[in-house]
Amino acid sequence: MIAEVINTGSELLLGQVVNTHLAFLGGRLFGHGIRIERQISIPDGAAIRHALEESFARRPDVIFVTGGLGPTTDDITRDLLAEMLGAELVQDDGILQMITERFERRGFSMTPRIALQALVPTGVHPILNHWGTAPGLHLPASDAHPHTFFLPGPPRELRPMFTELIEPLLATLFSQASPPVCRIHRIVGMGESMVEEKIGAQLMALPGLELGYCARSGDVDVRVVGPAAVVEAANRIIEAGIGNRIYAHDEGSMEGAVVDLLRTRKLSLATAESCTGGFLAHRITNVPGASEIFGAGYVTYANEIKSATLGIDPALIAAHGAVSEPVAAAMAAGARRISGSDFALSTTGIAGPGGGSEEKPVGTVFIGLAGPDGVQVSRQFYPTDRETFKFLVSQTALNLLRESLLGA
Amino acid sequence: MIAEVINTGSELLLGQVVNTHLAFLGGRLFGHGIRIERQISIPDGAAIRHALEESFARRPDVIFVTGGLGPTTDDITRDLLAEMLGAELVQDDGILQMITERFERRGFSMTPRIALQALVPTGVHPILNHWGTAPGLHLPASDAHPHTFFLPGPPRELRPMFTELIEPLLATLFSQASPPVCRIHRIVGMGESMVEEKIGAQLMALPGLELGYCARSGDVDVRVVGPAAVVEAANRIIEAGIGNRIYAHDEGSMEGAVVDLLRTRKLSLATAESCTGGFLAHRITNVPGASEIFGAGYVTYANEIKSATLGIDPALIAAHGAVSEPVAAAMAAGARRISGSDFALSTTGIAGPGGGSEEKPVGTVFIGLAGPDGVQVSRQFYPTDRETFKFLVSQTALNLLRESLLGA
Repeated sequence: MIAEVINTGSELLLGQVVNTHLAFLGGRLFGHGIRIERQISIPDGAAIRHALEESFARRPDVIFVTGGLGPTTDDITRDLLAEMLGAELVQDDGILQMITERFERRGFSMTPRIALQALVPTGVHPILNHWGTAPGLHLPASDAHPHTFFLPGPPRELRPMFTELIEPLLATLFSQASPPVCRIHRIVGMGESMVEEKIGAQLMALPGLELGYCARSGDVDVRVVGPAAVVEAANRIIEAGIGNRIYAHDEGSMEGAVVDLLRTRKLSLATAESCTGGFLAHRITNVPGASEIFGAGYVTYANEIKSATLGIDPALIAAHGAVSEPVAAAMAAGARRISGSDFALSTTGIAGPGGGSEEKPVGTVFIGLAGPDGVQVSRQFYPTDRETFKFLVSQTALNLLRESLLGA
Repeated sequence: MIAEVINTGSELLLGQVVNTHLAFLGGRLFGHGIRIERQISIPDGAAIRHALEESFARRPDVIFVTGGLGPTTDDITRDLLAEMLGAELVQDDGILQMITERFERRGFSMTPRIALQALVPTGVHPILNHWGTAPGLHLPASDAHPHTFFLPGPPRELRPMFTELIEPLLATLFSQASPPVCRIHRIVGMGESMVEEKIGAQLMALPGLELGYCARSGDVDVRVVGPAAVVEAANRIIEAGIGNRIYAHDEGSMEGAVVDLLRTRKLSLATAESCTGGFLAHRITNVPGASEIFGAGYVTYANEIKSATLGIDPALIAAHGAVSEPVAAAMAAGARRISGSDFALSTTGIAGPGGGSEEKPVGTVFIGLAGPDGVQVSRQFYPTDRETFKFLVSQTALNLLRESLLGA
């Protein structure tokens, strides 16, 4: 089953907004045995018509269009669709009532422009929007076009509408006996080519397997797609060849893996962050249920706060500098002691763009791990932009704890 | 000047990776007077050939292709390009040396597959990759095709290669007398239709102005594009109509605005986070130079840590619950006092999915602001997913401080 996605919105092309719809839809559709074979982003306005005509002509099984359904003058998808179908726009009273109630509840007043969103082309089914204003639209398949779904642009509306209302429809429209299976192995601490050397030849020998490598900041993902039995064979080859360097599968994350390990063993973690500035705590607390293992995070950005909060001797900082192995060790030990946690991770480094020296250039970082068996510090060098730096440091910190828990 | 972008990579279509290239390229190109009119994502493999042929036929001014240049077997852009051009692949000794040195420096050994990345089709110029292994490629314009640039897939390589090596080339190839101007006004605390009602009619009356609205989690962006004089007129209308609700322009962020305000006034900020779990500190420390105004963040996830770290009376938590107005106030006041900062922001709420009650359902949050004039608490309700919740809470917290600093 093949899908195409059309994302409308000049903001996507002008660099104002990152398009997260494609990744969301791709992941969800794969679970229904539907693969996106083509995605296109186009500006607001009339380009949608040409993109739809092209897509209709290629005749995929289903098309998803995002954006252009809102109340402002650049939202013209509804009108263009009616024009293309030669259909009338008819007011849907139920939808008008939903929109009116939503506005009253929020204390806003209705306007004629808002009410336009209750118009639906004849022959098209509205999809209720419980999360925003503009309804979605479902154009059922005909000789001229496949099933086409029009979805609101804001992710907060699109995502629940998709999972709660459209996926049940897809399950009915496109039920499949044995859809292909996809498994992603997420690997840390090995380059893309090193991974392929370990497992590539064996995997290439599996008939019917589709294989993909994807290098992401510091990580490599290996993706295997195919019939269930073939993917299982591939999984065995990958697990045997890579072992503990696989930190997660599919949607799994490093932080999820670490929280799971701690939770299973009833252990707790604290963080003492300088250069990651709260990002390490943020990643941990993104995992639902993190409160079971995480109670305390200290963002000790200033030296005085490192001393006041974590009890670090100012003389230690004066002697070695805040970005140093002894301070990273003292931060981790201090956070562990003060919070009463089983483990503590610390980060101290130079994120840049300023602050580097010849001895410790921008990108230098010390990562500490304190646990029941003592303290270890890892020195790394990540000369990159500020946000990637934070990601790499937090990833390495979490992996240090993960490997320690696994006894690697 | 019109550009098209072709993103290759099955991981983009399977939902494994969010495509951040488009937003990056769109923003950078606009500065050169080049607009992306079309972007397409396609799977790894032969689809690149068809996409390139289509794009060549539409004859934009320039084409950018990302991905497929790496060392693994699914990276076939280089080979397909040579085939399409009827060109030979010739080893570039300088590039081979760069790759070899890079591998030796990192302690990895070269393999024949790695060395394939030093092959360049005749007639194509390699673009050195100082940030990774695979070089970029520049296919100069001919009768058959416009200038086409092939860029490595990893953002850490693509971005510096683009800004440092390709942008100077673009400036030479596509210099323009008076490229159109773009201004984005970022607005908080108003709905999309409310914004349009305030300023829409006046803006629509400006000839030659291209206008776009984009609703993002809790915010609205208004984008005006056109000749410099028209955009200036639009800016005056928007500033007059919206005022202080505009928190930033263009690439500017709420955290950037807050850090700037504090820095200008030589004031400092601390954070005490429960439900945002470090995300508020993370956003603040994403701003280069944040250390001038931010010294201390406390992620007090557990109740005992709220008491131990911020000095909150356990009886207060017992009486009102951790998610309450008095606890939010005490967290902010405690963080301000302990850190010796001028201001402190606090967050305590129920991010979900678990932990809600009838009185305080999932999405309930109290945001505290302590300053020289006392403490205020704002109660909000953001029933959404965990990460959007963290964003909305941190955005509202930062805006609370921003408005307080502006005397709004």
